[in-house]
Amino acid sequence: MDGGSQSNRTVEQRLREIEDRLAILNLIASHPPSADTGADYFTRAVYVEDGSMDLGGGKGASGNEAIVAIVKTPEHQAAIAGGLAHFAGLPRIDIDGDSAVVTSYLQILTPDNGAEPVAVPGHGVSKGFRIHRVGANRWELVRTPQGWKIKRRMLRPLDGSEPARDLLQQALANYARKA
Amino acid sequence: MDGGSQSNRTVEQRLREIEDRLAILNLIASHPPSADTGADYFTRAVYVEDGSMDLGGGKGASGNEAIVAIVKTPEHQAAIAGGLAHFAGLPRIDIDGDSAVVTSYLQILTPDNGAEPVAVPGHGVSKGFRIHRVGANRWELVRTPQGWKIKRRMLRPLDGSEPARDLLQQALANYARKA
Amino acid sequence: MDGGSQSNRTVEQRLREIEDRLAILNLIASHPPSADTGADYFTRAVYVEDGSMDLGGGKGASGNEAIVAIVKTPEHQAAIAGGLAHFAGLPRIDIDGDSAVVTSYLQILTPDNGAEPVAVPGHGVSKGFRIHRVGANRWELVRTPQGWKIKRRMLRPLDGSEPARDLLQQALANYARKA
Repeated sequence: MDGGSQSNRTVEQRLREIEDRLAILNLIASHPPSADTGADYFTRAVYVEDGSMDLGGGKGASGNEAIVAIVKTPEHQAAIAGGLAHFAGLPRIDIDGDSAVVTSYLQILTPDNGAEPVAVPGHGVSKGFRIHRVGANRWELVRTPQGWKIKRRMLRPLDGSEPARDLLQQALANYARKA
Repeated sequence: MDGGSQSNRTVEQRLREIEDRLAILNLIASHPPSADTGADYFTRAVYVEDGSMDLGGGKGASGNEAIVAIVKTPEHQAAIAGGLAHFAGLPRIDIDGDSAVVTSYLQILTPDNGAEPVAVPGHGVSKGFRIHRVGANRWELVRTPQGWKIKRRMLRPLDGSEPARDLLQQALANYARKA
Repeated sequence: MDGGSQSNRTVEQRLREIEDRLAILNLIASHPPSADTGADYFTRAVYVEDGSMDLGGGKGASGNEAIVAIVKTPEHQAAIAGGLAHFAGLPRIDIDGDSAVVTSYLQILTPDNGAEPVAVPGHGVSKGFRIHRVGANRWELVRTPQGWKIKRRMLRPLDGSEPARDLLQQALANYARKA
């Protein structure tokens, strides 16, 4: 899928990898709508039973139900009521048979209640929004009879600290090896 | 396209759905360049004759020419001259035969003229940009002889109000039904 | 790939264009991780020998090694240490045989060290991040035996000035011609 020769692969194998990539794009694109509406049914469906969510600094959750519980906390519901938008960048996808790794950027946005209103012609007046968090995600996926599911999600803040850079470098490991 | 069995579908059917998805990705990716340059020819080409753009709160336009007119207003031209960037997140795409629904996030950015300049090493000095709006989009598409076109676009502000959450939840309706 | 008839093309031709598109998506998605970690080995691998990076205003670099050198400057390393995030929007991809053009939006984010901390329920306290730059990219790609590579990258600031609009309009040239 890096543009080299595909001559040793069957049409079926090629179609399957293509469909895998498109299914994974849709899975990752569904995370923001689920996080911003508290859709526990989505989270339950897309994490494997023993999945984990590692938010760094010892925070996170282990096991499907514990992960699901996070989006139903009063705190998360309060954030949603105040205006919460998870904004997903373009992900890199690496597939290896029945497992895959997705590396993606994420912004967490909230209304900028403390700002002065600004008028933009034809686009109304708004105090605007602030970027509360910027993070790098590593999604480790597995193929299941019900489609691709999340085995482990890691999120690290892109604030100059080392862990986010480690995570991002792993996405480019193939290039480092060949260098 | 959720990763399950594809065994009942022909190669032609599978190729067609894949090409549909990639054509739709390109269509949605073309919206920001058109909005930020006032490209009325693009808008005219991609909305069906009786298409509609529903911006919420009773605002919007009905019919191809009325939608096209919006990007040619003096207000929109002034916004472009002041610096306007529509920034599109990763969309979720759901195809059902000859129709499709795309759910996507959008930021509307403008220069932050009131801010203090900040220097970032190797990246110059800039007052930066502010996020004027964050919205959730629902694009209802139809297949036509000229390719996928927009039948209806809905945009709702992600400011904590209900309509955006309703729109986002519709994108996950399949997961809710199975739960 | 605009959704019209595909009847004159072989399965092999169709698979090849699809795989091209997905490989190009992955290439563009890899730029932020490389820029935010200073991954010179990635930059070296994805630019052709006589590639160029044109950042506007006479800035940029010509030739693979000169481009690679940019991510290794002390200034770029300082920006990374301070917290640097390149955030990529959804790209438009146009393929013509062995060459391709990608048009994409990019945000450059840094921690907003001068801001007051804000608490978001369930999402901690943060000073937030500022958008230092917003730019429009044009990536001119060529097919090589090692996959798709970058022949020329152009970046123009989306601050209301003409060059970014010119670049974005080129992405919609097909629509303008048909109008």
